[in-house]
Amino acid sequence: MKLKVLIVAGDGIGPEVTAEAARILRSVAEWGGHDFEFHEALIGGAAIKAHGTPLPTSTLDIALESDAVLLGAVGGNEFNSLPPDRRPEAGLLQIRQALGGFANLRPAFAHPALAANSPLKPEVIDGADIIFVRELLGGLYFGEPRQWDREAGSAWNTMRYTRDEVVRVARVAFNLAQNRRKKVTSVDKANVLEVSQLWRATVSEVAKDFPDVTLEHQYVDAMSMHLMNTPRTYDVVLTENLFGDILSDESAVITGSLGMLPSATIGGQVNLYEPVHGSAPDIAGKGLANPLGAILTAAMLLRHSANLEQDALAIETAVRKVLEQGYRTADLARSEKDKKMILSTQAMGKQVHEAL
Amino acid sequence: MKLKVLIVAGDGIGPEVTAEAARILRSVAEWGGHDFEFHEALIGGAAIKAHGTPLPTSTLDIALESDAVLLGAVGGNEFNSLPPDRRPEAGLLQIRQALGGFANLRPAFAHPALAANSPLKPEVIDGADIIFVRELLGGLYFGEPRQWDREAGSAWNTMRYTRDEVVRVARVAFNLAQNRRKKVTSVDKANVLEVSQLWRATVSEVAKDFPDVTLEHQYVDAMSMHLMNTPRTYDVVLTENLFGDILSDESAVITGSLGMLPSATIGGQVNLYEPVHGSAPDIAGKGLANPLGAILTAAMLLRHSANLEQDALAIETAVRKVLEQGYRTADLARSEKDKKMILSTQAMGKQVHEAL
Ligand SMILES: CC(C)[C@H](C(=O)O)[C@@H](O)C(=O)O
Ligand SMILES: CC(C)[C@H](C(=O)O)[C@@H](O)C(=O)O
Repeated sequence: MKLKVLIVAGDGIGPEVTAEAARILRSVAEWGGHDFEFHEALIGGAAIKAHGTPLPTSTLDIALESDAVLLGAVGGNEFNSLPPDRRPEAGLLQIRQALGGFANLRPAFAHPALAANSPLKPEVIDGADIIFVRELLGGLYFGEPRQWDREAGSAWNTMRYTRDEVVRVARVAFNLAQNRRKKVTSVDKANVLEVSQLWRATVSEVAKDFPDVTLEHQYVDAMSMHLMNTPRTYDVVLTENLFGDILSDESAVITGSLGMLPSATIGGQVNLYEPVHGSAPDIAGKGLANPLGAILTAAMLLRHSANLEQDALAIETAVRKVLEQGYRTADLARSEKDKKMILSTQAMGKQVHEAL
Repeated sequence: MKLKVLIVAGDGIGPEVTAEAARILRSVAEWGGHDFEFHEALIGGAAIKAHGTPLPTSTLDIALESDAVLLGAVGGNEFNSLPPDRRPEAGLLQIRQALGGFANLRPAFAHPALAANSPLKPEVIDGADIIFVRELLGGLYFGEPRQWDREAGSAWNTMRYTRDEVVRVARVAFNLAQNRRKKVTSVDKANVLEVSQLWRATVSEVAKDFPDVTLEHQYVDAMSMHLMNTPRTYDVVLTENLFGDILSDESAVITGSLGMLPSATIGGQVNLYEPVHGSAPDIAGKGLANPLGAILTAAMLLRHSANLEQDALAIETAVRKVLEQGYRTADLARSEKDKKMILSTQAMGKQVHEAL
């Protein structure tokens, strides 16, 4: 099969971790006799420095001609004083919008080998296996009007959804649930927000087309607590954009490290793949970053953009295997025993490669 | 001293838990020779049923003439299909707004006696002692415009803050921190939202008046994770309205049960006191509710509205003592040993009363 992949490594640890993900993808292509074509382009702070803008047209053009985009991370402390529309993050939001993917899939599950890494008790997380479906193109992230009026000393953003936006992302969640444990938990704040009332009513309507799936509604505040108390009881968790941002980061504690979490954004013109972790400028360039989030993201790319389910599973198994063998990156090393098994970003990438 | 307290018990378990809190307040008044005058009024679903509105003028009038308002909880499943402005919760939001308190203080700390109740490992929570300062009158809860346009199939809410609103709540946080561990963590999403940029800039400005307090900024997504990984590292956590709603509920897992958490809302014309838990309609009227959140809320009332710090501390100590003696309400009972020590709502109230 033929696949054109654009790698936008971005800032901080982005280049290091995507390099390991790309190495794996190259080998999968080679072993399977597939024709994967790789391109690279700038985004985020790196693009601001080179071109004065976080998403250059050249990057966008090649992204739109690709079959899949693999993104590292964006952001850096030097940009912290810039307004939102000129920051590295603006490049991320622009490429998300331009590629059109509205359903951001974020699996969070408890790796048995990493149980000691979670602040949660082993018996609480044991067997937890959640997938978040986070709406990615609506809500406060993109809602207009938005402004910081410095003269007037006031600022506002708009949390906005249309019925159609909710229908399409809800359908993704229910479809996923049909192939899993057949439960969707929809998260909102419908006791206070009109936009959440639209959300809840629309999700309930969509549910009628999926009679084999159980739908439950949870308020976002209660959900942030239940996720920690009873993570095992959740299957597919459907959220608007910001609630998904918060809850999926929170769920990193189920897996043991944010560095482990992959994501895939589907439903648009071109699928976008990005690990959940950020650019982590403090550890960038030191070989300390955990490449497993990016590698598991590559697995999602094979699953959702290349239909190579077996290869995706093989990568996921390989990651599990190296963890079971005791190999760790710095973020995963808690015990003295762990600390003796710390690998650099590159060495961890190679270890997974070998296990494959 | 003289104090006029209005009790608005509300719905579900509200009446049961406030009855226990009131019992304690009455005894404190008696023992100390204080003149506490108690009144009762309707709010929430109870008021809708009696008067067709979640906050009758009669309730509001007497609330505004009181020195402190003690609220139970509002909400019930039968109202779930009503629009936000006609639900029990609207009564809560209206009384919050009318009383004017903008700083909602929500302590979350790890009771050693309840360590087994937390899904978090004992070594993670041991010694954790956080106080949230949640802005309570702004953001998405009150921002205009807000609407669900059913014809158009779209809905929106507005997250809005003025500089003055941020200044006044930030000052409360910094003042608190000066008498604690001298650290404020301000939570926002300034990498995406203009309203968060105003928030961050304003909090940083206010910080200049408190050179002895360290200020750190955290994004709300990262914070939801850090709170679980390293709860001990936080002292005062300052948030806008919705972020505080989410993070303070999440922090219930540090204490072991939502039923333990008190809150006080200060800064306005009349202070408002409410446990963090909801109306829990499923267990209402069965004597299963945990009154300790309401009792600890009464302690906050004595501290912030009556300047009776010693009595507040005495109540907090009494609560700790009954927990150490092994007494539990149903929500707190995990082990077989716990289950033998389960008390009803009333019996737990009496136990604290005796310990006092
Ligand atoms: C970097 C930031 C804009 C982004 C988001 O909020 O979506 C990140 O937190 C994420 O979760 O992908
Ligand atoms: C009942 C609801 C309106 C309320 C809120 O969101 O403020 C509650 O969740 C709380 O935290 O006090």
